[in-house]
Amino acid sequence: MTTQPTPADKFSFGLWTVGYNGADPFGGPTRAPLDVVHAVEKLAKLGAYGLTFHDDDLFAFGSTAAERQKQIDRLKQALSDTGLIVPMVTTNLFSAPVFKDGGFTSNDRGVRRFAMRKAMQQLALGVELGAKTFVMWGGREGAEYDSAKNVRAALERYREALNLFGDHVTEKGYDIRFAIEPKPNEPRGDILLPTVGHAMAFIETLERPALFGVNPEVGHEQMAGLNFTSGIAQALYQDKLFHIDLNGQRGIKYDQDLVFGHGDLHNAFSLVDLLENGGPGGGQSYTGPRHFDYKPSRTEDETGVWDSAAANMRTYLLLKERAAAFRADPDVQEALTAARVFELSENTLDENESYDDLLADRSSYEDFDHDAYFNGKGFGFVRLQQLATEHLMGAR
Amino acid sequence: MTTQPTPADKFSFGLWTVGYNGADPFGGPTRAPLDVVHAVEKLAKLGAYGLTFHDDDLFAFGSTAAERQKQIDRLKQALSDTGLIVPMVTTNLFSAPVFKDGGFTSNDRGVRRFAMRKAMQQLALGVELGAKTFVMWGGREGAEYDSAKNVRAALERYREALNLFGDHVTEKGYDIRFAIEPKPNEPRGDILLPTVGHAMAFIETLERPALFGVNPEVGHEQMAGLNFTSGIAQALYQDKLFHIDLNGQRGIKYDQDLVFGHGDLHNAFSLVDLLENGGPGGGQSYTGPRHFDYKPSRTEDETGVWDSAAANMRTYLLLKERAAAFRADPDVQEALTAARVFELSENTLDENESYDDLLADRSSYEDFDHDAYFNGKGFGFVRLQQLATEHLMGAR
Amino acid sequence: MTTQPTPADKFSFGLWTVGYNGADPFGGPTRAPLDVVHAVEKLAKLGAYGLTFHDDDLFAFGSTAAERQKQIDRLKQALSDTGLIVPMVTTNLFSAPVFKDGGFTSNDRGVRRFAMRKAMQQLALGVELGAKTFVMWGGREGAEYDSAKNVRAALERYREALNLFGDHVTEKGYDIRFAIEPKPNEPRGDILLPTVGHAMAFIETLERPALFGVNPEVGHEQMAGLNFTSGIAQALYQDKLFHIDLNGQRGIKYDQDLVFGHGDLHNAFSLVDLLENGGPGGGQSYTGPRHFDYKPSRTEDETGVWDSAAANMRTYLLLKERAAAFRADPDVQEALTAARVFELSENTLDENESYDDLLADRSSYEDFDHDAYFNGKGFGFVRLQQLATEHLMGAR
Amino acid sequence: MTTQPTPADKFSFGLWTVGYNGADPFGGPTRAPLDVVHAVEKLAKLGAYGLTFHDDDLFAFGSTAAERQKQIDRLKQALSDTGLIVPMVTTNLFSAPVFKDGGFTSNDRGVRRFAMRKAMQQLALGVELGAKTFVMWGGREGAEYDSAKNVRAALERYREALNLFGDHVTEKGYDIRFAIEPKPNEPRGDILLPTVGHAMAFIETLERPALFGVNPEVGHEQMAGLNFTSGIAQALYQDKLFHIDLNGQRGIKYDQDLVFGHGDLHNAFSLVDLLENGGPGGGQSYTGPRHFDYKPSRTEDETGVWDSAAANMRTYLLLKERAAAFRADPDVQEALTAARVFELSENTLDENESYDDLLADRSSYEDFDHDAYFNGKGFGFVRLQQLATEHLMGAR
Repeated sequence: MTTQPTPADKFSFGLWTVGYNGADPFGGPTRAPLDVVHAVEKLAKLGAYGLTFHDDDLFAFGSTAAERQKQIDRLKQALSDTGLIVPMVTTNLFSAPVFKDGGFTSNDRGVRRFAMRKAMQQLALGVELGAKTFVMWGGREGAEYDSAKNVRAALERYREALNLFGDHVTEKGYDIRFAIEPKPNEPRGDILLPTVGHAMAFIETLERPALFGVNPEVGHEQMAGLNFTSGIAQALYQDKLFHIDLNGQRGIKYDQDLVFGHGDLHNAFSLVDLLENGGPGGGQSYTGPRHFDYKPSRTEDETGVWDSAAANMRTYLLLKERAAAFRADPDVQEALTAARVFELSENTLDENESYDDLLADRSSYEDFDHDAYFNGKGFGFVRLQQLATEHLMGAR
Repeated sequence: MTTQPTPADKFSFGLWTVGYNGADPFGGPTRAPLDVVHAVEKLAKLGAYGLTFHDDDLFAFGSTAAERQKQIDRLKQALSDTGLIVPMVTTNLFSAPVFKDGGFTSNDRGVRRFAMRKAMQQLALGVELGAKTFVMWGGREGAEYDSAKNVRAALERYREALNLFGDHVTEKGYDIRFAIEPKPNEPRGDILLPTVGHAMAFIETLERPALFGVNPEVGHEQMAGLNFTSGIAQALYQDKLFHIDLNGQRGIKYDQDLVFGHGDLHNAFSLVDLLENGGPGGGQSYTGPRHFDYKPSRTEDETGVWDSAAANMRTYLLLKERAAAFRADPDVQEALTAARVFELSENTLDENESYDDLLADRSSYEDFDHDAYFNGKGFGFVRLQQLATEHLMGAR
Repeated sequence: MTTQPTPADKFSFGLWTVGYNGADPFGGPTRAPLDVVHAVEKLAKLGAYGLTFHDDDLFAFGSTAAERQKQIDRLKQALSDTGLIVPMVTTNLFSAPVFKDGGFTSNDRGVRRFAMRKAMQQLALGVELGAKTFVMWGGREGAEYDSAKNVRAALERYREALNLFGDHVTEKGYDIRFAIEPKPNEPRGDILLPTVGHAMAFIETLERPALFGVNPEVGHEQMAGLNFTSGIAQALYQDKLFHIDLNGQRGIKYDQDLVFGHGDLHNAFSLVDLLENGGPGGGQSYTGPRHFDYKPSRTEDETGVWDSAAANMRTYLLLKERAAAFRADPDVQEALTAARVFELSENTLDENESYDDLLADRSSYEDFDHDAYFNGKGFGFVRLQQLATEHLMGAR
Repeated sequence: MTTQPTPADKFSFGLWTVGYNGADPFGGPTRAPLDVVHAVEKLAKLGAYGLTFHDDDLFAFGSTAAERQKQIDRLKQALSDTGLIVPMVTTNLFSAPVFKDGGFTSNDRGVRRFAMRKAMQQLALGVELGAKTFVMWGGREGAEYDSAKNVRAALERYREALNLFGDHVTEKGYDIRFAIEPKPNEPRGDILLPTVGHAMAFIETLERPALFGVNPEVGHEQMAGLNFTSGIAQALYQDKLFHIDLNGQRGIKYDQDLVFGHGDLHNAFSLVDLLENGGPGGGQSYTGPRHFDYKPSRTEDETGVWDSAAANMRTYLLLKERAAAFRADPDVQEALTAARVFELSENTLDENESYDDLLADRSSYEDFDHDAYFNGKGFGFVRLQQLATEHLMGAR
């Protein structure tokens, strides 16, 4: 195995990630704008296979049609020159003042209509570029104050927009699906559909649920103190992992968007293990883009931008190596068996066992030796975690 | 309006709440056990209408059939004497050593079968007592270490148990529904179905989803930094608010189970406003029990237990008064209109408008004056929040 | 009592607060720049007594001497016209790219020298304007990565700068003191001197500790889940509360800078009670400016800016009223006595009691009835909290 | 280097750690009590050098003098048989009902006197056993409700107790020092002296501050979202790191007490690097016990207890190896230099430079090229963090 990335690894980057200029709530830009052609060339050279972007990343909000087209043409040429693809696009409904109370769920109906139009324009561009996923991060869909937003009405309006988009791509025969990106807060005090769970629950209310999935981001779930790997596992369980945003976050605080692996390293390890080794036969459980949605730290100049881009990919590949070794280690297999991890995949009921059968089975209850679990029948989870830690550290 | 509770207010308490003995991770009990008959009498006198309980609250884990029956009979007599009802029951699959890795999703298959049997026994008792809701808090369904639990297998096992219960109550014709109670962590490092969203998403995978809803608890969502009122709004939107657990929590930390209103008071205000005034015509949006799942502080003796029980109800009724005055205030109505809160209930699309119609409407995009939102078209949300604050404080 | 603010209430505002243009990590400005003269006039009219500012708020970073002087003169005229004063100034060592790794503790020595000069220039202006406090918020003094910053060296450099400033004002005879403003994180991953405690501990290492105190901000401590009122109490205990920043924060997340009282209302109530009624004889324990360091929400236009400024003051005065009523209520006094709150002010030792005396007192240990605290001797804290809640809600 | 622990590594364990019976807020014990002699023997065999304990760990609260002595004698014999020492003792002022509102700061004066006596008894035992540190974790010193505790009075009472102890050991000539262990919350809603900073600040108010330092615990600081390594660095800077508690915590939630390294692995790496390589000449910056204050997971039986004890030590030694390699790597040294990490150790002022000199140095301000920091002069912190990550993972 190698830790030199290649297009086969399916690494993609948002144009806004390497293009982040360093502005934050307490300071302005520290880096000059990054031209899209330059970004495509550098990413290709580093081994990435894809570029993704918001409309406003490529052409400034309010561009004329000509300005817009010029940038699209330049991007296309760069893609053609490098072989990079655009596996995903998304739309910016959060930066311009018009979206200050959100897009699809702004209290202002005119804004909602404007947002739908802007999204459909970018959707069309995504289809034109061959993108298979349209991500929707509704970062401004939310509120700071509970009485300022009727959440049920907001959900109904979000549903109205998504149903329209679903009709649109279905009737046009577009080969693209939608992925909702949840986030609990920031820039709004509370954001609609704050977690992977809320988004997946909401999807079930849509008219065409099969068209909609989620695009979970490491840091967004961790900002709510949630276990990202567990959330991804539930998304996989419900066939809703349409796309994924990899980055790093150090606990419950502002959205850090660090390099993947520079946050919770244990969770990054188990995530890569799940994505790469969690399939039914032990193979990949997720085959889509490994998309990095991070920000090169504001302290860096352009050298740091590309160092950080490379760091994301290298850490992923190192973790993939470590996870493979973990799975291949006979001691680990023995510890997993001892901890009964595999036993959880066995049905609890016998084949064709009914509830009456279960109720009649005295061994399941009346004669079950529950006292044996006091001071005995330990699960050995700590030993297993230590094995994982040592593999993560390359110490076995 | 009065703040003296009556059974019409539908206040209910868990037997484990007033019966909490004060034990915590760093100290043993500070109060003697509370007899169930005494608890029923006191709660009835204070104005509650319901008592709820886990099996192990009423009769100790491992009780003989005779011991169990004796306690059931004593409870029935107390209910009959006081008029209190049992609107909900639940089962304890988390305290005994046998459940140290969970119940329905323990890695140990024998434990899973035992858990299903224990739950079914309590379900039968609930039906016998007329309970309409069976709450399932899976506090031990989880893990501290990512490799110790196959989350997808755990979801499949949880699904297996719930499908069986769904079949059982359907075929028996029992008039009872199930409510999953989410919690992000504690006592496990991470718990399966950590939020209202994850639980509602999971429910959609069940064979009889209509039988399953959620029982959100104020503190549990707030332990993940989530807005409880928003979560309840989504649960109402998806018709899944089967039951509710009211209490208080001061931020992201251990599960505090304070008196309702002794935590985030703004959020308690908006919650009561939603429950009491959020219905389509302005009436109640939730008509089930107002269930308090709290713990009288460990510093208190029995006097403090009943003071705290009364405090829960009184605070709820005060908030109900404040919310009614908030809604009735013409200044508030004017501010809500100015903030376009009601406008969010209007469809974004015109009647029968198609996406082609929308795309053809130049006023929605090409001619839309998005610049007006810079330095103008403020939403007035802060003014609205100040009005809410002043009503909450009884200052208007 | 009235809730109409007057200069006697000593309310002050940062120029950057009402002047906040709405930019955040995910969007640009939504409001036009606010002229300082206009700000002074409006604040005076609303009842404030003071304006505070960073150098860069008044004249842009990199201004010529002439530009700088012009703005200073305009400010002076406005102060003279309105009677507003400048009780505090501060310096911006966090916005410009040069400070991307901090000011006094940047790894780059040239930057450190530049930062010291910039601070001294603003210090001189503060003295000229009659400010009595120089606040230092070291928002960029920190790191995202543990190996990027030698924390002990950073403390030593911070100490070097502060010692120089202490010498400077002492030798010049300036009547101004320094207040360190702690914050745990944002915009850096971790910030030096993250809490009130860390800052006060550090101050003891300085050569002139009496010149240095703290400027705690509600939201900053609450971003670490800490109880703000408790932190203020310790600062008062150690005579280090030189200044205070009032605002609102809803839990552990990004820095929200909401209106005072729009965050944790219980804690705001106890804070005002402490500031206003916590003095030895029951009077004010803090007599300095009541300074609001908040941001008008990005959703607002200028009307919302002034509504929010007024809301800060009105909420403070309402809480002051509620706290006075709480203290005056005989039931509260009785409950405080019953909860032995006053007993904590009694010495634990008898007068002149030595440790030998204590060791010889069998009633203190051998004969002390510690068993009485089981199921008895409750403290009645929940009842007290309910009384506080009802006073806060204006319900008594 | 080896990862087989020896007494020279100075690893110590609390008796309550390996002796933890598994009880938590939602379940009773899962393990039988652990005899102290057995614990000493096992720890010695595993390579530890020290055992620490609370009084109540060794002999139950309320023991007779004879029962107490018997256990002390058994411990002494075991120490003698194994060569283990007792480097630290501490007292339990939090478990018994009498301490339900704290010990030294209980509102109840009788309790405060009882607490002082109990502490002094254990202090005497510590001296007898040769312990050099007396740890004070005031877990119950705090409150759930702001009005229930006069924090300034509580600090004054805590100070009274500590001054007495300081007099006592000084006058008796005891060779023992005190270490305050901070914690933000749990089991109280808010605890007095919540962080390392607050404790160090408070110590400066004592009559004999040199006798008092801190005993920071990894998880306690991380429960407030604080960077543990940074806190330790400040404690070292202020010469107050008297003792240290190593364990693991996964973010802001209940106190997990996981094995060291099973929480935030990046922070564990930088901590070990600081402790082992942070001394002036590159050697150890802390030479005291490496004390593990963790809990073997409730899912484990006794095998898991000893596996987890061993895991703590092995992870520490692995991190020590990784940190040594990190420091020895020329690429790391080059990157540290490029990031100007060493430059922070240079004085900002020239030798004997006064503020007047600085003000006169035009190169420091007027002629300083601050524009060069835009789009240039990057610090290379991300590259450094990637090097750290790769060393942590054993990948270089």
